[in-house]
Amino acid sequence: MRNFKITIQYEGTRYQGWQKQGSTDNTLQGKFEALLTRMAKAPVEIAASGRTDAGVHAWGQVANFHMDTEMMPKELMEKINSYLPEDVAVISCEEVPERFHSRLNAKKKTYRYRILNSPVPSVFDRRYVWQLPDRLDVEAMKKASCFFLGTHDFKSFTSAKKSKKSTVRSIQSIEIERVGNEVVLTFTGDGFLFHMVRILTGTLVEVGLGKRNAEEMEQLLLACDRQLAGPLAPACGLALMRVYY
Amino acid sequence: MRNFKITIQYEGTRYQGWQKQGSTDNTLQGKFEALLTRMAKAPVEIAASGRTDAGVHAWGQVANFHMDTEMMPKELMEKINSYLPEDVAVISCEEVPERFHSRLNAKKKTYRYRILNSPVPSVFDRRYVWQLPDRLDVEAMKKASCFFLGTHDFKSFTSAKKSKKSTVRSIQSIEIERVGNEVVLTFTGDGFLFHMVRILTGTLVEVGLGKRNAEEMEQLLLACDRQLAGPLAPACGLALMRVYY
Repeated sequence: MRNFKITIQYEGTRYQGWQKQGSTDNTLQGKFEALLTRMAKAPVEIAASGRTDAGVHAWGQVANFHMDTEMMPKELMEKINSYLPEDVAVISCEEVPERFHSRLNAKKKTYRYRILNSPVPSVFDRRYVWQLPDRLDVEAMKKASCFFLGTHDFKSFTSAKKSKKSTVRSIQSIEIERVGNEVVLTFTGDGFLFHMVRILTGTLVEVGLGKRNAEEMEQLLLACDRQLAGPLAPACGLALMRVYY
Repeated sequence: MRNFKITIQYEGTRYQGWQKQGSTDNTLQGKFEALLTRMAKAPVEIAASGRTDAGVHAWGQVANFHMDTEMMPKELMEKINSYLPEDVAVISCEEVPERFHSRLNAKKKTYRYRILNSPVPSVFDRRYVWQLPDRLDVEAMKKASCFFLGTHDFKSFTSAKKSKKSTVRSIQSIEIERVGNEVVLTFTGDGFLFHMVRILTGTLVEVGLGKRNAEEMEQLLLACDRQLAGPLAPACGLALMRVYY
């Protein structure tokens, strides 16, 4: 059995997220497993670097699967693409050592959140942005974001149900910049909890709107209470950009 | 009656083009007239700078209409946007002199044609590009495009049926550049015949693929015969970018 690592792009709009939910679902994992199983004429399981929520996009999701085939990686990629709907594409494919695992070996990830900060809607990017008409104070958001850098318990910033699993994560960088009429937030870290990037974004937006002070972020982290953080930003603005190994 | 000039963006995918085709059509002109007529409670006609074909996009279509209203232009724009589907948006609105006409007063227009020159499909731009896997020779295309600059009879480059109307047009500039994995063609001229930009693009692509020589362009123009020019490039790659007054 050979092990293949693939990089995948998808527009998440139509899907219930990456992770399989049942036999008749509409998830990306489900689509890929059905397709690869048909190609291999034997059950194939696919593992991704992590889940993406319903409606979240990917410019560089990474996944791997074991398959018995004589195809070259490039040939395999083209074959898969010929079966995929047009809102999903494999953009690279390589053979990797048998023990490579896309989730367990992932070192860090970059997510990007795009806010259209304008009263005028965007026809061409409407599926990829969260539109906020009121002008955001980017400097205040930057100041607030510094409190999240490094290693913290992000329990206040996840929708995950109570569990014994650690909610400690490390964020390496958060870049916030105004690009034309957008405010773009780029998060890089070793891993992110369920809804974490979207709740961080929702909280930083409240800072940008003057509803919160940057300094509150410190207490928010210490409180370990989801109720105190900001709202969940919409899925459509978020995209998994890159997974580092 | 006040005269309003609006700039419109639309994703053409779902529409049969700008120009109204009947009472139960799915055209942009039809949508706008129905909406404005409902708002004004009296028939409103809208004139655009020109038609766009079915499936062609606009980043900056310009139109004008006369309407009896007390709304300020900004208020009117927001009102119209609140009724429009999300693949159409008014991005500016101003009051203009009574005699202003978006088509008759247009001095020149810029169209952009995007070619995805890669074997790998683009999930996020799939609705806005023509995908061509074989590498295009951009230098040869540039050389060929020079023959089209200036004033010529473009009869070979239109699908328009025989008519007594002039097929002479002036092209001011054609820029062709490789941008990442795309080849982008930008045409600016005083006006373009039916299908002209798409047939010019189809012909330049044949040059880029080595199927034609750049020098053939001169005879092609002189022949005034649609049969001799290249194929009609798909609508989805084309967008009306700007109208100059």
